[in-house]
Amino acid sequence: MTPFYSKKDLFFQLFEHLGVEDLNRYPFFRDHNQETFELVLDAAEQIANKSLRPLLTEMDRQEPILENGQIKIHPGMKAIVQQFGQDGWINATFPYEEGGQQLPWTIHLAAGYILQAANYSASVFPFLTTGAANLIRTFGSNELIQRFTPSMYNGAWQGTMALTEPDAGSSLSDLTTTAYPTSDSGVYRIKGQKIYISCGDHDACENIIHLMLARIEGAPAGTKGISLFVVPKIIPETGEANEVFTEGLYHKMGYKGAPIAHLMIGSEKGAIGYLVGEENHGLKYMFQMMNEARIGVGMNAVAIAQAAFQSSLAYAKERPQGRKLSEKDLSKPQIPIIQHADVKRMLLFQKSISEGSLALLLFSSKLMDESVHESDLVTKKQKHALLELLTPIAKSYPSEMGILSTSAAVQVLGGAGYTQDFPVEQYYREARIHPIHEGTTGIHGLDLLGRKIFLNDGLGWEVLYQYIEEDLAKYEGPEDIRAAFDEAWKEGQNAAATILQKAQEGPEKFLADATLFLELCGIICVGWMWIRQAHIAYINLKKENANTAFFSGKIETARYFMEYESPKISAISKRIHSASYPTLDMRDYWF
Amino acid sequence: MTPFYSKKDLFFQLFEHLGVEDLNRYPFFRDHNQETFELVLDAAEQIANKSLRPLLTEMDRQEPILENGQIKIHPGMKAIVQQFGQDGWINATFPYEEGGQQLPWTIHLAAGYILQAANYSASVFPFLTTGAANLIRTFGSNELIQRFTPSMYNGAWQGTMALTEPDAGSSLSDLTTTAYPTSDSGVYRIKGQKIYISCGDHDACENIIHLMLARIEGAPAGTKGISLFVVPKIIPETGEANEVFTEGLYHKMGYKGAPIAHLMIGSEKGAIGYLVGEENHGLKYMFQMMNEARIGVGMNAVAIAQAAFQSSLAYAKERPQGRKLSEKDLSKPQIPIIQHADVKRMLLFQKSISEGSLALLLFSSKLMDESVHESDLVTKKQKHALLELLTPIAKSYPSEMGILSTSAAVQVLGGAGYTQDFPVEQYYREARIHPIHEGTTGIHGLDLLGRKIFLNDGLGWEVLYQYIEEDLAKYEGPEDIRAAFDEAWKEGQNAAATILQKAQEGPEKFLADATLFLELCGIICVGWMWIRQAHIAYINLKKENANTAFFSGKIETARYFMEYESPKISAISKRIHSASYPTLDMRDYWF
Repeated sequence: MTPFYSKKDLFFQLFEHLGVEDLNRYPFFRDHNQETFELVLDAAEQIANKSLRPLLTEMDRQEPILENGQIKIHPGMKAIVQQFGQDGWINATFPYEEGGQQLPWTIHLAAGYILQAANYSASVFPFLTTGAANLIRTFGSNELIQRFTPSMYNGAWQGTMALTEPDAGSSLSDLTTTAYPTSDSGVYRIKGQKIYISCGDHDACENIIHLMLARIEGAPAGTKGISLFVVPKIIPETGEANEVFTEGLYHKMGYKGAPIAHLMIGSEKGAIGYLVGEENHGLKYMFQMMNEARIGVGMNAVAIAQAAFQSSLAYAKERPQGRKLSEKDLSKPQIPIIQHADVKRMLLFQKSISEGSLALLLFSSKLMDESVHESDLVTKKQKHALLELLTPIAKSYPSEMGILSTSAAVQVLGGAGYTQDFPVEQYYREARIHPIHEGTTGIHGLDLLGRKIFLNDGLGWEVLYQYIEEDLAKYEGPEDIRAAFDEAWKEGQNAAATILQKAQEGPEKFLADATLFLELCGIICVGWMWIRQAHIAYINLKKENANTAFFSGKIETARYFMEYESPKISAISKRIHSASYPTLDMRDYWF
Repeated sequence: MTPFYSKKDLFFQLFEHLGVEDLNRYPFFRDHNQETFELVLDAAEQIANKSLRPLLTEMDRQEPILENGQIKIHPGMKAIVQQFGQDGWINATFPYEEGGQQLPWTIHLAAGYILQAANYSASVFPFLTTGAANLIRTFGSNELIQRFTPSMYNGAWQGTMALTEPDAGSSLSDLTTTAYPTSDSGVYRIKGQKIYISCGDHDACENIIHLMLARIEGAPAGTKGISLFVVPKIIPETGEANEVFTEGLYHKMGYKGAPIAHLMIGSEKGAIGYLVGEENHGLKYMFQMMNEARIGVGMNAVAIAQAAFQSSLAYAKERPQGRKLSEKDLSKPQIPIIQHADVKRMLLFQKSISEGSLALLLFSSKLMDESVHESDLVTKKQKHALLELLTPIAKSYPSEMGILSTSAAVQVLGGAGYTQDFPVEQYYREARIHPIHEGTTGIHGLDLLGRKIFLNDGLGWEVLYQYIEEDLAKYEGPEDIRAAFDEAWKEGQNAAATILQKAQEGPEKFLADATLFLELCGIICVGWMWIRQAHIAYINLKKENANTAFFSGKIETARYFMEYESPKISAISKRIHSASYPTLDMRDYWF
């Protein structure tokens, strides 16, 4: 079987690039070390190989169906979901006293990367449950925790995040699902509808536990009147059906194995829902989990890009076609296409995107662990500020570039890539969701430029500057790579200064190119990750018995990134420095 | 029903931008004028509306099947294929004496654009037959013409182009299908296999006529030993099955309604094939039809991008979500998303790509007509040289940008765009084929930089330069648009000069970035088309009773292109000016 990810690269990122084993300096992770981390990752690879990857194609071809108000998914998923529970994946990052393993998020997400690369659809089930359970355990009462989390942890029950409504997608402040108080304290009757609910209904679990946003009757308008509820499909103690009806099943372009439901909530008496935490704090709670969720989406995107890269790499090494441009003798055998410069360009592109993005995502994940467990308050604040700044970037860059990266994988295979005989076309379809999931790219542009840049008096950008400059100061790799990055970084800083000045001209002009600024920051941050990798590779190459092929590949890929991707900053900067605004001046009726 | 193309824009391009009615200065087109052209386009729109568009979704969901060696397609296709024949679409461009209408290719392709935008899968059937019939009538004997073309023209028989083999895709010189002479002059027995044959078998026609490349036994190696044959599925006079077996049906990511076959040729005695023209001239014949075919693929790509644009535009006008960034009052109703700058950016992007590409394709189509019918030999040579140069560009830019343009359409719809509830996800899947069809983008990069640039001592580029400078000299639109294009154009010329100098360093270095050079030329040529359109729009705006909305939209879209797309030339130039070659230096085993 073609490999679907590079273990060598993942281990390089975790242990050589980021030194995640040093997380055990924090008491919470004291029992962990590189060995325990490797055990977790090996376990993930085993499930991925044995259970997930074999169902990749089948789950795409045999879509879930909706029958008598019940979504039925691929029968193989039941065993997988149970295994995730039994093996302790769902609550792995939680404390020992909750049955968890006190595993760093970094390692949990790295394990997730392996699962996602093997079979994205199958991988989403446990991650949604983890996210939902985390909301209950963090903000819910002891009673809610006792009632709901154990069966979520063991995989018997599915968790979901029920946010979107027909009239409230990106604009969550407009949601209208309403919760009516009952005589029982903390118990509400909820009416409304939710759309696009991932794993919102299926038959591989005994119950579905929705973490649902709704507005308590009479609550203030906008985001300040939104509360969070636990709304189970089945009331646990009585086994009675709650009023959560599966109205529809979406048919999607990709990741068809994961069912996405349209739910009608409480069309008669109202569905029973249990308030989580305080009234009107729902969106705040949800957003406190957003860093994890968004880093998670970035990870999904890069996992698929990596799987597509591996698939096209294997093909390029085996497929003979054509000869060197200088070879005119047609009696010579054809050469593998990997030897053509343009094919190598498409492979280097994919490698630079997926390994560079993985580095950024793991770097951000580590910040997540550090900013939670750091005891030095100044460091903690700095790390958290940097994490907040990096989150929209680490979500969006891999998501947007994942489209191009999987597209390059299809192109390497040519006509074969367009057929279902190879998995690259599936990866291409699956990758398209990530610029939409958990906030569109446009929303993240606004988040970065309209909010994150200004948080804590701009501390995030200040820390970013400091980190990058430190890495440049200690960098030892090839000078051309450093110089190219330095030029791009300076150009990027200039563009940032220009766009920040536009804040004085009102929000419309200031934010008109927020998406472009987000892209620019993505190139800078991933470029920075390549500087760090080239540095480590260079040092390693000087050691005896070094894996020269691996480290030379790292350096050449860093060079590729600087030669082909960094120059895009010039194009974006040129636009940002302009004072002309066609996207504001264009009238609706001119289209 | 949502419109799937802009008639207003198509008519603008044909009659205001390109003045195609003046083609009747050539005797061959003497009976035509704007009125006859409009009748043809209206007829295309009627078929598109009545027959093609209604089957768009169904043909995607009900894929062709292979049953007992016979491919069965959507039952609705039979009537459509017959109608194309009966209404004279298949031989419309051919002379009156062949039953044709002496229609310019420009109008034929423009009509095709309408059909393709309505339903790409359904549109390919007649175009393939036209291409195959054109080879027979141009290079075949009278006997072959009499035997085969009438039933192809009337839609009873399907034509195909059978080039690709398992070991000969991009490298056609390596094809091994072999033709053995028989005692009948011009009749051969052929053995081999062909893959990816579009419409290579189906049940909507009575016979399938393959225009097949094969090597006559003992012919020289490489491209100089390839001959062209007519290989029918059924021998017309006897009704006997020829030895053409449908071995497989490809399942594809998109344009599922058009069957793509794997054919085994002559596994017993050999399939009967009739030589077209002279021995060993097959590839030359095929390539003489390549301009039409490649312009045709570009047109397919832009038609799909246009349909996706229209779909997302209609959605953006209707879908309320969020408020202006400056509006903090949540009691105000939500606004249609078209009013958000970032949504307008995605719509302007699509409009600039699809209308700019359509302009380039129709400009190239007109060159096709002119270079055939022009009597002044100097002009003829110039026009042909420019057409040769523009062909890889007009094929590849719309194909590559079609991916991004349909992706932007998906993004405008957000989650809805990823579901099968809207056609944009289908357009996204269908658009992915065009960078592969009729030569991959990489192959066209090599064609442009390695061949076309040097043809006729560089006449093509010289004519391009002259045309662009003339248009800039007479340009009357807004100065910022002119200045931005001029800067990009100069930067592009500089990059071209640099890359041409690299020819001295051997083919590997010279051609390493051929694909980037192709992209650069695409931006220049489409930018040039926007200069031309802005000029005409500006002049029209000064007229009384002008359609100000339409022409203002043209100017603002031209500005968008200069502000957001042209700057990409800076990024590509930066790369081209570099002397570092990671795509050459990277070793296979470093990946």
